[in-house]
Amino acid sequence: MTTPSADTTGQELDSVLAAAAAARAPLASLPAAARAEALRRVADTLDGAAGDLVPLANEETGLPVEPRLVGELSRTTFQLRLLAEVVEEGGYLEATLDPPDPSWPAGGRPDVRRMLRPIGPVVVFAASNFPFAFSVAGGDTAAALAVGCPVVLKSNPGHPGISALSGSLVTSALSAAGLPDGSFALVRGEEAGRAAVLDPRIRAGAFTGSPTGGRALFDLASSRPDPIPFYAEMGSVNPAFVTEAAARSRAAEIADGYLGSFTLGMGQFCTKPGLLFVPASHAEAVEDRLVAALADRPAARLLNDRIAGGYARVLSTLVDHPAVRVLHPGADSAVGPAPTLLGTTAADLLAHHAELAVECFGPTSIVVRYSSAEELLACARSFVGELTATVHGEGDDEVAGLLLAELTERAGRLLWNGWPTGLAVTYAMHHGGPYPATTAPLHTSVGATSLGRFLRPVAYQNMPQHLLPEALRDGNPLGIPRRLDGVLTPR
Amino acid sequence: MTTPSADTTGQELDSVLAAAAAARAPLASLPAAARAEALRRVADTLDGAAGDLVPLANEETGLPVEPRLVGELSRTTFQLRLLAEVVEEGGYLEATLDPPDPSWPAGGRPDVRRMLRPIGPVVVFAASNFPFAFSVAGGDTAAALAVGCPVVLKSNPGHPGISALSGSLVTSALSAAGLPDGSFALVRGEEAGRAAVLDPRIRAGAFTGSPTGGRALFDLASSRPDPIPFYAEMGSVNPAFVTEAAARSRAAEIADGYLGSFTLGMGQFCTKPGLLFVPASHAEAVEDRLVAALADRPAARLLNDRIAGGYARVLSTLVDHPAVRVLHPGADSAVGPAPTLLGTTAADLLAHHAELAVECFGPTSIVVRYSSAEELLACARSFVGELTATVHGEGDDEVAGLLLAELTERAGRLLWNGWPTGLAVTYAMHHGGPYPATTAPLHTSVGATSLGRFLRPVAYQNMPQHLLPEALRDGNPLGIPRRLDGVLTPR
Repeated sequence: MTTPSADTTGQELDSVLAAAAAARAPLASLPAAARAEALRRVADTLDGAAGDLVPLANEETGLPVEPRLVGELSRTTFQLRLLAEVVEEGGYLEATLDPPDPSWPAGGRPDVRRMLRPIGPVVVFAASNFPFAFSVAGGDTAAALAVGCPVVLKSNPGHPGISALSGSLVTSALSAAGLPDGSFALVRGEEAGRAAVLDPRIRAGAFTGSPTGGRALFDLASSRPDPIPFYAEMGSVNPAFVTEAAARSRAAEIADGYLGSFTLGMGQFCTKPGLLFVPASHAEAVEDRLVAALADRPAARLLNDRIAGGYARVLSTLVDHPAVRVLHPGADSAVGPAPTLLGTTAADLLAHHAELAVECFGPTSIVVRYSSAEELLACARSFVGELTATVHGEGDDEVAGLLLAELTERAGRLLWNGWPTGLAVTYAMHHGGPYPATTAPLHTSVGATSLGRFLRPVAYQNMPQHLLPEALRDGNPLGIPRRLDGVLTPR
Repeated sequence: MTTPSADTTGQELDSVLAAAAAARAPLASLPAAARAEALRRVADTLDGAAGDLVPLANEETGLPVEPRLVGELSRTTFQLRLLAEVVEEGGYLEATLDPPDPSWPAGGRPDVRRMLRPIGPVVVFAASNFPFAFSVAGGDTAAALAVGCPVVLKSNPGHPGISALSGSLVTSALSAAGLPDGSFALVRGEEAGRAAVLDPRIRAGAFTGSPTGGRALFDLASSRPDPIPFYAEMGSVNPAFVTEAAARSRAAEIADGYLGSFTLGMGQFCTKPGLLFVPASHAEAVEDRLVAALADRPAARLLNDRIAGGYARVLSTLVDHPAVRVLHPGADSAVGPAPTLLGTTAADLLAHHAELAVECFGPTSIVVRYSSAEELLACARSFVGELTATVHGEGDDEVAGLLLAELTERAGRLLWNGWPTGLAVTYAMHHGGPYPATTAPLHTSVGATSLGRFLRPVAYQNMPQHLLPEALRDGNPLGIPRRLDGVLTPR
């Protein structure tokens, strides 16, 4: 008998992978309605178990019950239901039909029909900081199951109990919904995760976590005899830029918003704003207001010892850096740290970008004083790959437009007069970005288009009706949006 | 003064990359109409120079003028014009608008708008076998320019003159169309190609060619401190399966079509059918017919010495394999080889898949005798990543459906009662497949969706109208298809 916390053995993993491979074809051939129904059943099951899930998550992660964990669970089940809708609508299949056309240039056009199909079994690595939304039944699992890919879930060791409970709830909900055995399984331990990435039965991987872990797994996936796509979301510094005009009109409001955002959830978000660029003219006022507000901020527990250790290490490197001033040292207590505020200058940031513009996963951020619009733009250009970038500006603010032009090449999401924490799950949301934010700049791990990571196109040429997938048959029997002879037609 | 055939030096490459990086923002900000106009101007310029281009290509590659090179040039210019239309239509941007909605679950929905944007400068590696369609102004170049990415074109040494001439025609056409300097440049030499893949200014790569070359460049791209997507199309065996019922009803017709397809262009297509599975009951008749027809087939030149050498090497390995019978040995002449036909059995193919199911780039194919539907299905399951798979069957053919179910997991394009050579450039066409056919199973190098390789999403949150890209502004000023609050709306 294996205890719930023991690592998955090689033999156990082999059974899991064999079952996932066996589930591949039956799961892929289920109609969209069956997959949507399964996602909704998982959502209902999780909502029904909130009374068990939330307290256990609170115990294992230290995250507060209200509003955080209750909100995160409802976000997670909403995400499952939204992806169910997306799958039923069918536009995600990109069904495209080219009727035969003998007059088509270069030799005529045969009957060609294209759609997206599930890529096959996926290994998903759960994150530590969201025990629901980016864990067992989180966005990656939901997206893979939504399109018909079996999921092998490498659980996060930071919340073993919630992982085991969520895993068994997901398994039983999928089974009750009639999904084939092997559609979902949970594995434990780094070795099982690595072995899954290297196994030929696995066709793609998804990960949310640290740059070190994400890059190591991406390298494994790319080194295979048959490389597979590996979607790692590895966090970000999320710079926020305050223009002179914005500082002039509402410095206090911006300072308060920033404080709320970088300390939210003890700063344990990949969207935490890690740098705030403030004009030198208003920097002292902003810093003073922040320092005063931080005096009252209590120390609190971080997610787990590993996170706490990493935070302490990065923070101490920043504090020791000659270009960094400590504006407010967050006192350490037995329970954990209090938020820390640091300061530097734009000139120092430009001179030491690699050392200062680093993700410090926890309740710390750096205020960067800049002295001119040119310097601010140079700072914007010093970033290469961010999940988000934020601009606080005014309506007729010329520098804001220039900033956004630079940042649009460097970040996945651009915010105006807001804060990057609090990621909405929507149709248009993009949670991704150029490396080092992710290993796959074309893809998102949140929102309707997150399905695209687990789909590959197939074209059918001169195929008879009865051998075509329903999505591509004449008369549009599924009633889905399709592109017909180049023209997009809604259902 | 550099001669046209000298390799690009490190210093020259640096200038090219600097110019590409400088062109990135101005090219990305051009309206779709300007990019479409530039593609059409390239097409017109190439068509206008056909009288120079076609004879030179004939001289350098040995490919026949009619219908091949004339047809390939018109396919190439058609492709440029089709992608111009795709860009103007605007659906490729995937513009998606979520209006703010305070009642949206998990905390309300801000205004989120998403679109795809150019990824940045792209290095394109030209192929040897299509001096127009997969070379300087081929599909990769057209797709990258179409979406607004500067192109650094690594020319193929197999046709240096046609590369230089095409390159100067493209450069002058783009310049006449008002595209910024640095939008396109041609470089020569393997070292320049490798250095470009590793350069931080390059944001993606595309390649058509051999498995060795494609994998080496993919590995370089993945090994960068900042990995980039690398789209290598590396050829395929393209198995064709003839069911018992199809053989019974039209063995001779199938044999003739197969012969035409595997010898077309002296077999120098990545879509050449390399294996034909024939029921044992009809194998002798099919083989006899093929052998008789091959007696008349002349020897002909292959593209270049490198291709000829590779062909001779792989062919001799196949011929020497104990499981292979030589049905018709193609005589070698001073000009080149004549087509060769080999034979084996399904049992041997299953036992020696890695040695027999290999791409032999040139005019050779293998007839595989199978003895049961079960064996045929086992053979189908032995493939893992193919550009195409073909089934010849009859309407009520149960085994055809079973075959297609297997092959749909293993190939990018499935053909019914046809042949994979002669790839149409259309909206729905998919030219790709799981590894080893390509390094990027989600993408195609041919057709309207080939643009997707060079685009990354960006989301804009609560952005004022004047700071949004036009594609995302209220009122749809560009008149493009968009998804609004989850609902797809044509223009």
